[in-house]
Amino acid sequence: MNQAMQALRTQTLLPGVKGLPLRAPLRQDEIAAQGYNVLDGRLSYPVAVLRQSTLDHNLAWMRDFAERAGTLLAPHGKTTMSPQLFQAQLDAGAWAITLATIPQLRVAHRFGVKRVVLANQPVAYADIESLAGLLHEDAEFQAWVLVDSVAGAARLNEVMTRVAPQRRLPVLLELGLDGGRTGARGVDAAFALARDIAAMPALALAGIEGYEGLWTGADRAADLVRVRALLEQMVALTRRCDAAGLFDGDEILISAGGSAYFDFVADAFAALDGLSRPLRRVLRSGCYLTSDHGLYHGLQQEMRTRHGAEFRHGLQPALELWAMVQSRPEPGLALLTLGKRDASYDIELPRPLQWHRPGTPAPRPLREARIAKMNDQHAYLELPPEHPLQVGDLVAVGISHPCTTFDKWPLMLLSDDGYRVVGAINTFF
Amino acid sequence: MNQAMQALRTQTLLPGVKGLPLRAPLRQDEIAAQGYNVLDGRLSYPVAVLRQSTLDHNLAWMRDFAERAGTLLAPHGKTTMSPQLFQAQLDAGAWAITLATIPQLRVAHRFGVKRVVLANQPVAYADIESLAGLLHEDAEFQAWVLVDSVAGAARLNEVMTRVAPQRRLPVLLELGLDGGRTGARGVDAAFALARDIAAMPALALAGIEGYEGLWTGADRAADLVRVRALLEQMVALTRRCDAAGLFDGDEILISAGGSAYFDFVADAFAALDGLSRPLRRVLRSGCYLTSDHGLYHGLQQEMRTRHGAEFRHGLQPALELWAMVQSRPEPGLALLTLGKRDASYDIELPRPLQWHRPGTPAPRPLREARIAKMNDQHAYLELPPEHPLQVGDLVAVGISHPCTTFDKWPLMLLSDDGYRVVGAINTFF
Repeated sequence: MNQAMQALRTQTLLPGVKGLPLRAPLRQDEIAAQGYNVLDGRLSYPVAVLRQSTLDHNLAWMRDFAERAGTLLAPHGKTTMSPQLFQAQLDAGAWAITLATIPQLRVAHRFGVKRVVLANQPVAYADIESLAGLLHEDAEFQAWVLVDSVAGAARLNEVMTRVAPQRRLPVLLELGLDGGRTGARGVDAAFALARDIAAMPALALAGIEGYEGLWTGADRAADLVRVRALLEQMVALTRRCDAAGLFDGDEILISAGGSAYFDFVADAFAALDGLSRPLRRVLRSGCYLTSDHGLYHGLQQEMRTRHGAEFRHGLQPALELWAMVQSRPEPGLALLTLGKRDASYDIELPRPLQWHRPGTPAPRPLREARIAKMNDQHAYLELPPEHPLQVGDLVAVGISHPCTTFDKWPLMLLSDDGYRVVGAINTFF
Repeated sequence: MNQAMQALRTQTLLPGVKGLPLRAPLRQDEIAAQGYNVLDGRLSYPVAVLRQSTLDHNLAWMRDFAERAGTLLAPHGKTTMSPQLFQAQLDAGAWAITLATIPQLRVAHRFGVKRVVLANQPVAYADIESLAGLLHEDAEFQAWVLVDSVAGAARLNEVMTRVAPQRRLPVLLELGLDGGRTGARGVDAAFALARDIAAMPALALAGIEGYEGLWTGADRAADLVRVRALLEQMVALTRRCDAAGLFDGDEILISAGGSAYFDFVADAFAALDGLSRPLRRVLRSGCYLTSDHGLYHGLQQEMRTRHGAEFRHGLQPALELWAMVQSRPEPGLALLTLGKRDASYDIELPRPLQWHRPGTPAPRPLREARIAKMNDQHAYLELPPEHPLQVGDLVAVGISHPCTTFDKWPLMLLSDDGYRVVGAINTFF
């Protein structure tokens, strides 16, 4: 365990950390010995709870999927930005950790991550210098970086030459679709960019990258057409660059894959063979680790429909938020201690899962209620007027889109299946 | 300066802090000496920038408003959760700091805030025990706490008796409207609750509270009807509780006021007189400190329309985010290094203000562009195809709703009017 990870284990948590009932400082590695249980009502609510067994299941399931599919995993770390979860992913066989920004990459490196994919083109000189500085100072550290414009590539080339002259930066050419996000548009433009990159001495064209996970709208058929089109173009571009001898290195890398369509990605990459050298296929899914009760749950159902048995015991939601009923001012309304500061609201509002009265045997389902609105620190739970929920009861909600819940919690609790708190993880946003 | 504030000043910032171009550790109080300037393109973008002169203006303007209106200010600290900004508010005459949750209150206390309003009813035993513990341990510390149910009041009474037997907790009875958030519904129900509170030996009924700032929807006339109704009921309830001798203490406290309607609140409170003892009128505005370029900017315009001269040089937007153009993959589209992890999106998306090419004399307006969408780490800027914006240029955006931008930045930069970085503030979410 590296020094920063060790320091995290033994760091002192002060009263004011969301979700812990602290009145005095507590060492983080003493959390498990406190006898906390989410259900006993003795914590400060809301709490964010990761179920350890479900995390373990998802880690193992995704490792197995990648193995079967002949891909490597470089899980997107921006989802959680948690060193302990990065480590769990690496321990479960991940080849690298993907990050979105240079500050994120610095955090990962500090906590011992030695192989990263930066799934963006860094453009600010300070960012490129920071990356090149790490490459210069740490011979063990490896980074693959996206490029989607000549202007961007030229910046990388200039800074690498100046700051890390002993190393060449492996870059992945990003391909995009019209109407998409970043990425050179279309195979012809991308191929022209590949030629430019190949001529830059501090860069090594290591492969081709795309991101298909953006298309998760209401028109599912149209989304799938775009996903397939991007993957087909990626394959065509890889063949064309290989035929032109533009790739540099012993292998060619191809990477795509969020958590929405990694099955399509794996299939498309599996069909790519006959290249001049070995192909390294890399999936970058991030949300797979916790999944959710909303968007990604629905996308998992779609994979089940597409594939059947293989996905029957697929990714499961590992993250719940537990809030307390603060007020029940009207028969059909309860206010929960849970708001925009605690739960995702960018895709849909959290959905009630269970309610529990501390001191009673077990939580009960709460399907007949819904969260109609959230303020910064409150959720408006609409429920049948006769529902017994009262001030001091607990309500568990599931979220939609893990990325925008993780960034609201500096510390999340780990629990066993009985909601006993067995540890904690930290995030760095 | 208390010890925690001092520690903050001299803390070591590590590479990975968003917005700082760090390749090595830096002491926070050395930021000003680095010669950073947002416009020179040498930072890591996005950065969040608070303009010092505008903060000072808003602090002074709000202090003057409160003085003229005969109210005290207990600014809502949940907006920024920044100890340095709390201190600036106290230095500008704020009577107390308002917080939303006990973890927030613990943070404020740690950084030396000795008088707080908790604008919620704490319900979890751990939270109440934490509060009572502070009151027990720190004789200088004063807290006013909301109550909106007998069940909640009983919890407060029980814990105070057990944990802080030498003190009584001053509580404010929260009044709410049907269809609103927390708060007893209507004067009769609230008055009944006041009687119950008055009978609880560890509690002192110190006053009446309401929150009118929720009603900021599209139907402005309907919103104002509700705001006025709540304020009228608060006044009526205060008179009734006073007449019944239910208030405890040398004064009566009445508090409302977000940043949308503090003019109405001040007017309603000013008209309340003839009580049995002095009235302490408390505004709790939070967003006034930075205002914004969206929701609160519009609400300020409305105040200007209502009042004219007094509001002509009123609250100004103090917060901008500066991002870099990462990609311009299509003529009408630029991708900015700014996403849901950086900017508010709960009310509306950020709006472009200016663009700047490092090395050129000054930023230029960017009114002809709009942000159409954000992902976690990207903004989609739609602009005229012929616009010269290119990779490496900077774009400044204004936000709507400060609360949901502050919570995305552990550190924000302070700048002078030329965007030179003169310091930084920290947030604790």
